[in-house]
Formats: sequence, C-alpha cells, structure tokens
Amino acid sequence: MPILNKDMTLCISLAARPSNIGTRFHNYLYDELGLNFIYKAFAPVTLRDAIAGVRGLGIRGCAISMPYKEAVIELVDELDASALAIDSVNTIVNDNGYLRAYNTDYTAVRRLLTQRAVSAQLSVIVQGSGGMAKAVAAALRDAGFASGTIVARNEVTGRALAELCGYAWAPRVGELTADLIVNVTPQGMTPDEALLSFEPGTIAAARVVFDVVASPSETRLIRAAREAGKAVITGGEVVALQAEEQFVLYTGIRPTPEQIARASAFSREA
Amino acid sequence: MPILNKDMTLCISLAARPSNIGTRFHNYLYDELGLNFIYKAFAPVTLRDAIAGVRGLGIRGCAISMPYKEAVIELVDELDASALAIDSVNTIVNDNGYLRAYNTDYTAVRRLLTQRAVSAQLSVIVQGSGGMAKAVAAALRDAGFASGTIVARNEVTGRALAELCGYAWAPRVGELTADLIVNVTPQGMTPDEALLSFEPGTIAAARVVFDVVASPSETRLIRAAREAGKAVITGGEVVALQAEEQFVLYTGIRPTPEQIARASAFSREA
Repeated sequence: MPILNKDMTLCISLAARPSNIGTRFHNYLYDELGLNFIYKAFAPVTLRDAIAGVRGLGIRGCAISMPYKEAVIELVDELDASALAIDSVNTIVNDNGYLRAYNTDYTAVRRLLTQRAVSAQLSVIVQGSGGMAKAVAAALRDAGFASGTIVARNEVTGRALAELCGYAWAPRVGELTADLIVNVTPQGMTPDEALLSFEPGTIAAARVVFDVVASPSETRLIRAAREAGKAVITGGEVVALQAEEQFVLYTGIRPTPEQIARASAFSREA
Repeated sequence: MPILNKDMTLCISLAARPSNIGTRFHNYLYDELGLNFIYKAFAPVTLRDAIAGVRGLGIRGCAISMPYKEAVIELVDELDASALAIDSVNTIVNDNGYLRAYNTDYTAVRRLLTQRAVSAQLSVIVQGSGGMAKAVAAALRDAGFASGTIVARNEVTGRALAELCGYAWAPRVGELTADLIVNVTPQGMTPDEALLSFEPGTIAAARVVFDVVASPSETRLIRAAREAGKAVITGGEVVALQAEEQFVLYTGIRPTPEQIARASAFSREA
C-alpha cells in the first residue's frame, strides 16, 4: 500500500490530454531515491485556476503540455532564458511562491547536441514549424548552427520560424539535402510504413539523422538511418533528457543515467 | 512502491497546521476498497488560490480546518444545510466545477446522538464557544434538545452561541448540573491531571458524558465518567464519524464499521 503523508511535496503536469508517462517517470525516481515527493498529471478545467492552485497549494513543480505552453506565460513571474528563447514554457518551478518558467525541450536538445559533439558547421534541415520544431530550431541556432532550412507546408509558421533563426524556408523537402536532418512532424507516429519523413536520397546525403518522434521508440526514419549507417538521435532521448531536466529543477537532484533509463523504461510500460 | 497514475482522483485538506490523520485515514480506505483516489493535506499559501486550485485541477474533495472554516464560505457555490446551520464549512465537494460545502462535524454529532438514542428530553451543558462548540450546540438544538446552557468564559462568543440555540449562558460550570454534559474546550488535551473540564459533582449528576477532545483517546473526563458508570461519547467517535461522512461525500461509498475502525487506528499510528 502506498503510505502517503501530509509532508509530501507535490509536482504536477497540466495537459489537455495527459499521458501516464510523467506520472510514472517521476514517481519511480522519487521512490528509487527515497524522496518524499509525489507526482500526478491533471487535465486543468481552466489554466488560470490551475496555476492559482500551484501558488495556493505550494505545488513545487508543474509541467506544461499542449495546448498551454504559450498561454501560461502571462501567469508566471519570470521566464528563464530557455523559455524566452522560444516564447514557450513546458516547466514551472515554484520557489516559495515565485514561479519561474523554463523550456526543458529546448534545454534537452541543446544538451544532446553538446553530448553528441555534433559540429555546428553542419548544415541543417528542420522539418516542422510547431512548438517542438521551434524548440529544436532555436536550440540549433543558439548552438551556432548558421546554415539551416525550415521545411513546413504552413508558410506562415514556417517562414516565421525560419526568420527567428536566420534560416531559409521551403514548403517541402523534395531533393533538398543537409548534413543534419531533423524530423519534428508527427510523421512516423503511425505504423504506416509509407510515411517516411525524409526521402531515401536525403537520408543518404545526411551524416546525422534526428527524429523527435518518441513513439514508437524506433521510427521508420530512425531505422532507415541506422540501416544506412548514419549517426542517429531519437525522440526517446529528447523525452528522457527533458524529463531529467525537469526532475533536477524540481528536486535539485540529478539521477544517474542508469536510474533515468530505468525510470524511462518503467514510464513507458503502461 | 506506490504505483500512482494520471487518472487518480485527488482529495485534499487545507489547514494552517495540517496533521497526518486525514491523509492516512483516506489513503488507507482507498487502498482497502481499491479506489483510484489519492489524498494529501496542504497548508495553503492563500485560501483563495487554494480553492481556485480545487476548481482548476478538478480536485474532488477538500476538507477545511482551522482557521479557514468561515472564510471559505464566500469561495464556494452553495452551502449544504449542515454548513448553513452553523455558518461554518469543513468539507467541500466538487461536482464538475460546482462547489457544495458541508459541515460533517455537525452531521457527525447529529448522527451520534441518533445512534446512541440520546433522549432530547435531557438537559444539556455545552462547555466551549468555538467553532466545534457551535457545531455541537447547533446539532443538539436541531435534534430537539430544548434545555441547555452554554458555558464559556468568553461572554461575547458564549452569549452569541447561547442565543443561536435558545440556551442559557454561564461564565463557568461551578455547581451547575445537567443530564448530558459536553466538553468542547481544549481541556483534557494535556497530560495535566489537574485539568478536569467538569467537577466531580457535575459528572456524578450527569447521565451521559461527551468529551469532544479526541487526543488522548481516553481523556481524564472520559475516564472519570466511565469510572462513575456513565454513558460516554468520545471525541474519537466524532472524528471517525465526521471522516466517514467526508469519505462518503467524496467517493459515494460507505465503508463498513470494521473498515472505518481499521482506518482510524491506522491514521493515528503516525
């Protein structure tokens, strides 16, 4: 039986359609590390009242998912550089009533680029122009990647993101090639084998292939890239690293890579 | 390890100085009954933001303790008769965003009087004029006890409560006697044996002795009454029954007396 107590520190997430992943990931690590914390996902009735609740109940941490990442900005007290870089929040830390907002997707992509020692001299194609594409493109820009193309069928959001990063825009990949190609569209989330987010020729010309899609854990793009002998970065790595960053912000403790791996595996079991 | 999940229904309590009792009582029963609920006590930063959080996060139930029982009235949508009777709230139920407020202390005292078949013909002394004394006195009044005295050193609150119930007021018990004597002051909460909330003569003249003090589980007054062969009602019974009423309001399920007894015992272990 879970022996809960009044002194547990609560962390939550807010999403229109919560998944179970964060709840399982964080509670697994709380238990493994012996922290008197508890974590639960919520679908807020209104965002404003939910954030009031973060303040009023002294909730320590709050993950922000779709569709609240921009709307929450006016409800916090300060934006960290990671959130300012893309005007998007996915993490709030409550320090004695002061709410500081972060974007750990951005942080995670920057850390992955550093960990993998991906050279900023590489040319880049980022496919997508939604919130996560913005996090990836801004992280690339801030990491010094100067030559890039944003590929997005939506010309308004595509051009806006390209302008933000000083990159070109194109409506489709077609015959384009780059050293580092990144998929940040939902393509690859369905089992439909026909949907490959980059053409074989573009994959063949790339040196590093990065698919932000995390489910399935090996997308068709990642499989094709591996088969072609390319270096790959997976969505699962981004998800795990951004969750790790949230965990560190909330608790002040950085779990070991093995603990993160076990928590990630556990979080995806159900 | 507690395997928490995103779909758990959250119930909470709000108190300036939360105890661990509610958290342990409710979670014990959730586990025993296999309910996908979770319960945690909070010391709110501000009451208004905490209640906004009840709405915003869809928190199902919220117990209200000192010092928020009156201040919370303006923040709910409707007062149940139990809360209206004493202008005091200790329980909020959230039905799809509509907050209905109850006072289960009042309800518990009324149910105890009925369960014990205490005749409303008995004369009554209620010692105390705080929030809990108000719940007890109003429950007695509404159960038909017509002849009563409120004993309170504080003349303002004592006279006000006496007037509310149509009872007399006296500043101290002294030589007063009644058939049913009720202590609703903190006397008896300390181990100081000298502090007995009624004189031996008053105890001897009573037929039923009711001590609302719940800790220690057998107060000096209750022990003295038992030794004198009196019928007794203990604070522990009130606490368990009001918690049971809250449990029923939140979950729609009434546990068995054995389950309540086990949860009560568990709740007091730590």
